[in-house]
Amino acid sequence: MGASLKYLDVETSTVQGANGVRYAYRRMGPQTGRPLVLLQHFRGNLDNWDPELVDALAASRDVIAFDNVGVAASTGVTPATFEQMAGDAITFIEALELDTVDLLGFSIGSFVAQEVALTRPSLVAKVVLASTAPQGAPGMHGWAPDIIGAIGEPTTAPEGYLHAFFTDSPGSRSAGQRVLGSIYGRSEGRDEETTWQTRNAQYDAVMRWGTPDFGMLQRLTAIRQPVFIANGDDDRMILPWYSHLTASLIPDSFVKLYPDAAHGFLFQHASAFAADVHRFLDAS
Amino acid sequence: MGASLKYLDVETSTVQGANGVRYAYRRMGPQTGRPLVLLQHFRGNLDNWDPELVDALAASRDVIAFDNVGVAASTGVTPATFEQMAGDAITFIEALELDTVDLLGFSIGSFVAQEVALTRPSLVAKVVLASTAPQGAPGMHGWAPDIIGAIGEPTTAPEGYLHAFFTDSPGSRSAGQRVLGSIYGRSEGRDEETTWQTRNAQYDAVMRWGTPDFGMLQRLTAIRQPVFIANGDDDRMILPWYSHLTASLIPDSFVKLYPDAAHGFLFQHASAFAADVHRFLDAS
Repeated sequence: MGASLKYLDVETSTVQGANGVRYAYRRMGPQTGRPLVLLQHFRGNLDNWDPELVDALAASRDVIAFDNVGVAASTGVTPATFEQMAGDAITFIEALELDTVDLLGFSIGSFVAQEVALTRPSLVAKVVLASTAPQGAPGMHGWAPDIIGAIGEPTTAPEGYLHAFFTDSPGSRSAGQRVLGSIYGRSEGRDEETTWQTRNAQYDAVMRWGTPDFGMLQRLTAIRQPVFIANGDDDRMILPWYSHLTASLIPDSFVKLYPDAAHGFLFQHASAFAADVHRFLDAS
Repeated sequence: MGASLKYLDVETSTVQGANGVRYAYRRMGPQTGRPLVLLQHFRGNLDNWDPELVDALAASRDVIAFDNVGVAASTGVTPATFEQMAGDAITFIEALELDTVDLLGFSIGSFVAQEVALTRPSLVAKVVLASTAPQGAPGMHGWAPDIIGAIGEPTTAPEGYLHAFFTDSPGSRSAGQRVLGSIYGRSEGRDEETTWQTRNAQYDAVMRWGTPDFGMLQRLTAIRQPVFIANGDDDRMILPWYSHLTASLIPDSFVKLYPDAAHGFLFQHASAFAADVHRFLDAS
């Protein structure tokens, strides 16, 4: 598997977990060093990772994207708590016989990443939280009506994706068009679409996560790994100030907000974000 | 007392409270409508209100600035909790025989304003919180070393004030120089300087307020008044994201951050801020 292989050309593999689930995943980049495991956003499958970002990460890093239990091509039923999704992610990582990994969780994937770091700290070296918030934070009980309206319907449309993931500026819209083209850039070996069951289970989990419970905030003080917290400066799905709240709770953490960017900041600023991730993960 | 009288020319009055304290205050503007009571920042006395801001507020509003118990020319000993300062503020407002007031609290004055609104809601119609944060929020246990170093020493200097209240940009520094000139613009009838006892009691109160206690955050959900939350977008003394945290807790509230401004944003943007305050307080 050479470094020159592009994410759009990587075939989907499967591995059997101890829970009986057959997980779908794609792995690329040099098979040396600590792997970086990607945790996907709401309703996303393997094709929803921007290939430009994954290629930039895999240029010098063993990168693994996977469908969690019940999501897209992975078997099983999607659970309705991030705690269970974290347990399912741990089972996947164990199935690949990986001792220690870095995590990059995006959106609800960042909630799963927090849970993995809290549940099985020995498995996790460093964590990147992209568009994140702590469980129990005020104002997180469901997404804004226009956002869940744009991406939460039975049938999704490119315009809804653009609305939730990019700002209204020409630059951000243009980046969104590029990402949309990339996401649909693979003609063969595409992942399966995520189901309505997955959508509902994931959003149920969001509602549980967002139930105000201020004591829960303190959980994050137990995350001892170095954590890089990133977001767009104009994310209306998970507001940027939650990044600062998260950072105020995790002792060894820092925040970077990317300009003129919304939820999809890490795709819009793929090159800069990948460079920041490499710098963070490579630091001793 | 005509609307043409300027804050720099307003004489200091005194009133005896039911607690035996003789409060120093200055009142100006039309003596009609609901008075606006100003609650001052750390170590500030009556002269530390930017005359440009007070004049803009008093152009169409009955404005009252006062020294709380033990502060500057008011008698008594400064207490070390914002709860007690709020009780002392209520006693002052009662001494003036005011039934209902609006509050504008700046910095630690905004903490006092929160406590007044929670303790005696019937006394308070609307609240402006300038550079605020909720009690118990993470990361509030003391100010950044460079900030408390700049304004917390026994002897204060203009450079320290500029560092804590303004950004490093030429525009903000220039505003800071104007404000410094205004603060020292009064030659006769100046207020007394605040004491080391006041400094220590107020900072003790800050430390108590900042002791992490996440359950305390929920107190603010009990503030039912309309609340305007304002800050500079680059305040390093009380960080801007605390404004969003506060807004997420107070049901009827909104946030505005002023550009290229630090803790002293309300002086730097005196005209715009006063206009926003008038609009908010005049709205039905």
